[in-house]
Amino acid sequence: MPGSHKLCMIPGPVEFDEAVLAAMAAPATSHVSPNFIETFGSTIELCRKVFLAPNGQPFIIAGSGTLTWDITAANLVEPGENVLVVNTGVFGDWFGECLGVYGANVTHVRAPFGARPSLEEIEKALTAKKYKLITVTHVDTSTSVFVDIKSIAKMVKEKSPDTLIALDGVCSVGAEEIRQEEWGLDVVMTASQKALGTPPGLAIMVVSQRALEVAANRKAEPRTYFGSFKKWLPIMKQYEARKPSYFATPSVQLILALHTSLKQLVDQGMETRFAKHREASKKVKDALEKWGLKLVPHSRDIAANTLSAVYYPDGIKGPELLQKIGAAGVVVAGGLHPEHAAKYFRIGHMNVSAVNEAENGHLDKTLHAIESALKVKRHPSPSL
Amino acid sequence: MPGSHKLCMIPGPVEFDEAVLAAMAAPATSHVSPNFIETFGSTIELCRKVFLAPNGQPFIIAGSGTLTWDITAANLVEPGENVLVVNTGVFGDWFGECLGVYGANVTHVRAPFGARPSLEEIEKALTAKKYKLITVTHVDTSTSVFVDIKSIAKMVKEKSPDTLIALDGVCSVGAEEIRQEEWGLDVVMTASQKALGTPPGLAIMVVSQRALEVAANRKAEPRTYFGSFKKWLPIMKQYEARKPSYFATPSVQLILALHTSLKQLVDQGMETRFAKHREASKKVKDALEKWGLKLVPHSRDIAANTLSAVYYPDGIKGPELLQKIGAAGVVVAGGLHPEHAAKYFRIGHMNVSAVNEAENGHLDKTLHAIESALKVKRHPSPSL
Repeated sequence: MPGSHKLCMIPGPVEFDEAVLAAMAAPATSHVSPNFIETFGSTIELCRKVFLAPNGQPFIIAGSGTLTWDITAANLVEPGENVLVVNTGVFGDWFGECLGVYGANVTHVRAPFGARPSLEEIEKALTAKKYKLITVTHVDTSTSVFVDIKSIAKMVKEKSPDTLIALDGVCSVGAEEIRQEEWGLDVVMTASQKALGTPPGLAIMVVSQRALEVAANRKAEPRTYFGSFKKWLPIMKQYEARKPSYFATPSVQLILALHTSLKQLVDQGMETRFAKHREASKKVKDALEKWGLKLVPHSRDIAANTLSAVYYPDGIKGPELLQKIGAAGVVVAGGLHPEHAAKYFRIGHMNVSAVNEAENGHLDKTLHAIESALKVKRHPSPSL
Repeated sequence: MPGSHKLCMIPGPVEFDEAVLAAMAAPATSHVSPNFIETFGSTIELCRKVFLAPNGQPFIIAGSGTLTWDITAANLVEPGENVLVVNTGVFGDWFGECLGVYGANVTHVRAPFGARPSLEEIEKALTAKKYKLITVTHVDTSTSVFVDIKSIAKMVKEKSPDTLIALDGVCSVGAEEIRQEEWGLDVVMTASQKALGTPPGLAIMVVSQRALEVAANRKAEPRTYFGSFKKWLPIMKQYEARKPSYFATPSVQLILALHTSLKQLVDQGMETRFAKHREASKKVKDALEKWGLKLVPHSRDIAANTLSAVYYPDGIKGPELLQKIGAAGVVVAGGLHPEHAAKYFRIGHMNVSAVNEAENGHLDKTLHAIESALKVKRHPSPSL
């Protein structure tokens, strides 16, 4: 297996640190054993440092990032309430669909593929009626478009201060700058397998005290059992107080792995982490553009630092290019947007692949694989 | 860590095979890479063999066993429909609560602590009105009471053939005899961390074609996004057809581990597996009763083979006994029932600890630890 391992440079799951993988193989441990309680409690505390939310309430629940949508929708929106979705790709479409399942009246502010709605457009939509919640996909993994949540949050606080602000940070938390509390974000959602550097299987979110109050004062009970704040809040508080508790069995090994990774993140420092991801992104995008490739985002300043989405050059067949890159030992991802999937591919550059490039050379190896694959395709050898 | 490892003899998470733990530490793998697609597809197929449901539809979803309740409730019950819960402990209470969240009109058939409702009582309740669904906890982990689902299913098919039958097999699948298709069970639910021998983090269920049709013909859309059959069914079918697919990122490492474990189960053979768990249970219960301890279930024939729940002997303080057992290197669990928790403790004997006793001696080690702890407490040394 290790011999045949290909570098996983997709926008999640990402490459993991060896200590994180070692934690995944920890022997059977009771979810109420003192050592696990200590680790889980500490992991909850570490989330606050990673999300820069000293007073936020972390939730760490077995599931995927998608589950955090259900949790947000079910606990914070009552049937018939309005939600504004800032939509920059399919994850906006799907989050909107999820909100609708829980009875929300959803309005999307959209932009063309590769663009994002302007602050003015968002403000115009927001002030057209009363919104319970605005949701923003920080980085839509389908387009790699990055949204300036800081400016949006500032505008929402001025124009509609009661509107809760939820950030889908699945492809950004741990890499892109997020200052949850300073920026006044009520919910920041993510999953384990992206810039938090832990294998997939955990839904992770930090919720403001204001949002918890809104959930506590609902008129109707939330339409979820497994995703209910009321069920999980006492569990999270108990573990943080280093006391045993039970609602549903936590994913012991994944939480041990997450703890290992979050400690590394906090030791690196979040500012360093943000800077390293900016550097990695610049390195990859500079190379792609130098080779004449065109990024999916319409300009660099709306392009994510966690991945690069890039059009296939003319005359190159996507599947063949991806196969060539794979043959060189690097896995990148195809497009993920119903209308445009065949036209572009995506390179993830998160976690150790972004932060430890000097030691592991993941970016160089990836760029080399892409460059070689492009050359072969463009300049077939005379013998062919 | 390995040096300090205590044998985890609680009713889940259980001890895991080394090959399963090794799979947990597999390096980053794309959820749409050919090798993962092959493994996930094969895991889905293996579920049918383990559940003895050749035509059933497996679902393997990131989450815990609790999530399978939400999925069952949200997809198979419409608001206002009647559900009968055969209740033998707190897991029956909680499943009933979950069903209520999704609008079910829930009736419980209860029994005193340590007992189970008779077939006649269940029949009487079932025929009192029209039920959409009957749910049965095969083994309630809080009481260790085992329910004869085979006889119940037979009776339901005779008296109320349209009623769907759902089995909560969290503490039984992979150990207790279950012949899902032959017995006509519409839903069998479990989690990864018990007799399926995989670390916690996966919600696993197999659903009959009849139940899928009921879900497909609902009047109202299910009140869940993450738990929707409609979302997951194409994903499961695609992976089984060895094609890439995406709804939410699967827990790659956990699925690799589950695949490793299910292959072992199927290689052992389910009949062997059932027999080995019966033997292990007999060995533990014989020893406990020989020492004068009293089991929580009122008789052996209603006691589970996957765990033993046993009262503390008179004059023994529970926490002290558990601590002594822990000091001897074995972790067992306290009681889990609001009214009775302080009076009993629980010993899990599942997976490798039941099946490979001849090689690993887990049961002997556990019984020795308990026996020693009991002796110390009962016969304090003269110097004290």
